[in-house]
Amino acid sequence: MPYVNIKITKEGNVTAAQKQQLIEGATELLHRVLNKNTATTVVVIDEVDTDNWGIGGVPVTELRKRPAE
Amino acid sequence: MPYVNIKITKEGNVTAAQKQQLIEGATELLHRVLNKNTATTVVVIDEVDTDNWGIGGVPVTELRKRPAE
Amino acid sequence: MPYVNIKITKEGNVTAAQKQQLIEGATELLHRVLNKNTATTVVVIDEVDTDNWGIGGVPVTELRKRPAE
Amino acid sequence: MPYVNIKITKEGNVTAAQKQQLIEGATELLHRVLNKNTATTVVVIDEVDTDNWGIGGVPVTELRKRPAE
Amino acid sequence: MPYVNIKITKEGNVTAAQKQQLIEGATELLHRVLNKNTATTVVVIDEVDTDNWGIGGVPVTELRKRPAE
Amino acid sequence: MPYVNIKITKEGNVTAAQKQQLIEGATELLHRVLNKNTATTVVVIDEVDTDNWGIGGVPVTELRKRPAE
Repeated sequence: MPYVNIKITKEGNVTAAQKQQLIEGATELLHRVLNKNTATTVVVIDEVDTDNWGIGGVPVTELRKRPAE
Repeated sequence: MPYVNIKITKEGNVTAAQKQQLIEGATELLHRVLNKNTATTVVVIDEVDTDNWGIGGVPVTELRKRPAE
Repeated sequence: MPYVNIKITKEGNVTAAQKQQLIEGATELLHRVLNKNTATTVVVIDEVDTDNWGIGGVPVTELRKRPAE
Repeated sequence: MPYVNIKITKEGNVTAAQKQQLIEGATELLHRVLNKNTATTVVVIDEVDTDNWGIGGVPVTELRKRPAE
Repeated sequence: MPYVNIKITKEGNVTAAQKQQLIEGATELLHRVLNKNTATTVVVIDEVDTDNWGIGGVPVTELRKRPAE
Repeated sequence: MPYVNIKITKEGNVTAAQKQQLIEGATELLHRVLNKNTATTVVVIDEVDTDNWGIGGVPVTELRKRPAE
């Protein structure tokens, strides 16, 4: 019966197949670790614009412009 | 002062009138059960792409392709 | 398949029966308005300490000390 | 290491510069008040359609049509 | 940079070691599927009282009292 | 009308006064940057056990045991 919310930045091309792997993987993880019922496990993926996600006080849009260290 | 978040899959055509019914209904529910002040009750509805919602380890997009049991 | 999250302040004595009414009511609301399957609707209630909830820039703990207007 | 989620209605034209100010401001706030490490503070901004946000039981779309009091 | 929130019911005795497995597993999942940077992946686990979690319109507290089918 | 959710680890002794500063600060931030109405801005603070928060695949409880680098 767990509920899992995965938030990622909307970058590159996340395919439906990759989302399916996230849904399967998160559901299996809860089953493996806590023996949760897979049938009622819910996974919701949010894709967030890079302007709307910040880390270290800087939007990801800006981080992506910086040269790799 | 409650905050209610309703997450649904983005399917069919959820109209503005239906969303209004959800907002009204959730606000009334909190008032009826807990006597909460309707004036400051906030309701936020999230519509989630069917690729991004999984149950039972399967994306809703895939579930909708299966024949009804 | 909806997911509903209800956040309320932890005040008074919210009983298990009242929580049950919130769970039933939210589940019915989604069924009535959008014909959602009640069997897979999930409702999660969060009770938040009044120190941890603010409105108008003021914690609810402080609001409750003010004389009624 | 804090996580801050800011939900606002999708109205007017919220610019990337304004979002950057929200990200900076929230990160600084956690540092100033609780001495949190800014490097690992995450801020996520959600912009919500006015049909999908209600207060006082009324969608914001409807509130915006009403004459100012 | 992903953020993962795992909500489970507060039942049995979920140990710190099991929580560690959830944190590791979710972090690895995002790395394996989307090549996300593990260093900045955040996982937050919420344990919810069984009175406060409902499925099918029924609190989990009540579901647990029912005889197994 | 914004809604701000601040999640922090439950460490040290976060006082009611500090929580009040977070509530005030977040409310002012939204007003300053986007001219949002402070009266209806809601801030909710969640304090999360260090066993339940992970970064880099490691629970904060474990991170705190490590010698400073």
